[in-house]
This record gives sequence, structure tokens and C-alpha cells, in this order.
Amino acid sequence: MRQFTHAVEVSTRGKGLYDFTRAVETWVRGLSVTTGLLTVFIQHTSASLTIQENADPDVILDLNDFFGKIAPEDNRLYRHTAEGPDDMPAHIRTALTQVQLSIPVVSGRMALGTWQGLYVFEHRSMATGRRVVLHLLGE
Amino acid sequence: MRQFTHAVEVSTRGKGLYDFTRAVETWVRGLSVTTGLLTVFIQHTSASLTIQENADPDVILDLNDFFGKIAPEDNRLYRHTAEGPDDMPAHIRTALTQVQLSIPVVSGRMALGTWQGLYVFEHRSMATGRRVVLHLLGE
Amino acid sequence: MRQFTHAVEVSTRGKGLYDFTRAVETWVRGLSVTTGLLTVFIQHTSASLTIQENADPDVILDLNDFFGKIAPEDNRLYRHTAEGPDDMPAHIRTALTQVQLSIPVVSGRMALGTWQGLYVFEHRSMATGRRVVLHLLGE
Repeated sequence: MRQFTHAVEVSTRGKGLYDFTRAVETWVRGLSVTTGLLTVFIQHTSASLTIQENADPDVILDLNDFFGKIAPEDNRLYRHTAEGPDDMPAHIRTALTQVQLSIPVVSGRMALGTWQGLYVFEHRSMATGRRVVLHLLGE
Repeated sequence: MRQFTHAVEVSTRGKGLYDFTRAVETWVRGLSVTTGLLTVFIQHTSASLTIQENADPDVILDLNDFFGKIAPEDNRLYRHTAEGPDDMPAHIRTALTQVQLSIPVVSGRMALGTWQGLYVFEHRSMATGRRVVLHLLGE
Repeated sequence: MRQFTHAVEVSTRGKGLYDFTRAVETWVRGLSVTTGLLTVFIQHTSASLTIQENADPDVILDLNDFFGKIAPEDNRLYRHTAEGPDDMPAHIRTALTQVQLSIPVVSGRMALGTWQGLYVFEHRSMATGRRVVLHLLGE
């Protein structure tokens, strides 16, 4: 059994979902692990991870809209307002989604379904870079 | 250290939670792994996974109702409507729950709490089959 | 490759987030694992896990408020009322967050971001103890 770790930085340009499946796929394939477990972990509390449909791009726009409505930017709703009106909603949106995903590796590839893509879900308005740690265990 | 993979198909008959704890438990016990880590991964974006109370069946009915209200079927709310009024709500409900769960294996069994059951959470109206990939690492 | 399991009990005093990062960190450090995968699993369906900001304490108060509003205590909304008005909301709040988190271990430490803390999110009103199972795999 072997294990590998890696870090990728995903650039974001405001709220929305950013597909980074290919970056992860490329790293996994290069390691020649046939069977294993891949873990993806984001080191932030105002951006998160989700696996979602990668076919119709409207899906990820609708998802972003939904999370905008459920945790609105309105300083009257929150105590924590010092980092801007988008910060507390970003923490809520993160709590409602994932900071970590583990995906089995089968036959040398992530066992994603046909329509599943791996996304960084950015919850803040400004452009930034998000650090994601990868861990693969297998042989 | 050894590892094993398997796939199970869970049949669903419309929106709701479907307990598949026993199918997973049976597979795990047959492998004679005393200590390890089990990962359960669903290969869909309109059905998800959750661990919930398996005692009072009203709990899973109330859960299904809650997710029906939070992401209503109303085409005016979404861009993505081509796959039917239940499809975009299904993606939202999936984003709000899990596509993956990892459970420690201790003394040869999943370390579930007394009242915890493993469910496929179906978010679409039609009857279908949902594919779940299992990965177990241990010895 | 070696693996270790452990259980910690986190005492809670009503709804809210309880930081238990240090208890986990102490256990991990004592095992002298340089690279690995840590899994944290809570054995309950009315308390959950989340990774959130540990800098401004207002963030976790606002989070608790948000989850109080999204799943209100109102017996008219639910079938499952026999265990008290806070029980069904607790199951919903658990479904919306996590029962399990896996965190890569790099250079002998959990690869948490600078502001990330590990919390038990208590969703019931009464004081109680919550059992969390830890599993570490690595070398």
C-alpha cells in the first residue's frame, strides 16, 4: 500500500462553482494506482467542495442562486459583519456543503458517475485562490 | 493492509429515504476485516446519501418533507427545467446532503451508533436504480 | 501502513458549536504518523460535525442562529414530535451538515487551514455527551 499527497490551488473570480475535475484526474492518473481511496480537502471556511452535474451549465448557476437566497447578504441578520456582507453568508454556505470528499479509485480512475464533476464552490465576491489538499492511498 | 471494492444498486420508487444498511453490513462482514475504513459513494447528482435515525419511521418522512419545501418544484425559480420540474430541486437537495460517507470499521463492524441507518436519499419522482460504490481498506 | 482507532466523548450544554480540535490533535500527534488519513465520525443523528472558522466567536453563534431559523421548533411542522420540539429540527440540522469528516495528515499534523477548527454541532437543548469515533491510517 502506498500513499501520496499533493496540493492544488484553484483560482476563483467571485461566487460560483469552479470545475477542477481535470486537475485531480491528471494527478491521480500519474501515480499508477489501480485501486485506492482519494480524499480532497479544502483548507477554507468561506469556500467549499461539491460534486455536481457537469452537463448543463445552468445547473451550477441555479445552485449558486439557491445558496444566495438561502443565506442572504444582509448585515442585520448577523453578528459577524466586520469582514464584509458576503463573509457570514459564505460560512453558512460552507456549512451546508462539504469541505471534504473521498472518492474510491477503481481501475486507475476516480469512480465518478457519468455526469459528476468535482467543484470548488466559491462563496465570496472577490477573486482569490483556494487551496485544496489531495491524499491518495492505494496500490 | 488489504482493500476491496464492490457496487450495489439500490432501487427507489420516488422521493424519499431508502435504508440500505443491511446490504452494506452483509458485504463488510463477509470480508473478515477487523479494523478499517469503509467508504460509500453514490454515482449520481440527483440522489444522495445520509445517515439518519432508523427508529421512528416518521423521521424520514419529515426529512423528505423538509427538503421538498426548501427546494420547491417551481420552474419559475430555475433556469434548468428541461429534465422536468423535479430535476433542479434534486440537484439542490443533493448539494445539501452527501454523495459520500466514510465509516470506521471496529471489531469487524461499521461503527454506527445505535440509531444510525444508512440511506439513499432519492430526490426524483420516478422509480429508478441508484448505483453506490463501496470501498473497504483494512485488515 | 498502520491504523489506529479511538473514541472521544464531547460534553455539550445545549445547541451550539463545540470546538474539539485539540483533543483530536493531541491523539494524532501521539501516534507519530507522518502521512495519513484521519476520519472523524459522530455516532448520533441529532448532533453533527462541521469544520468552521475558529477566529471570531460570532461566526459560530451566527451559524447556530441560521440553523435555528431554517429548521424551526414548531410541532405543527412535523410528524415526529414525541421526543420533544427540538428533536425533529435536530435531525434536519444533522442532515444539512456532516456526521463524518476525513482530514489528510501531512508532516505529522492534520492539514487544517489556518482558520479551520473542528466542531461538534449540538442540535438538542439539553446537556449531554456525544461520542465521536476516530480512525487514523498512515505511516
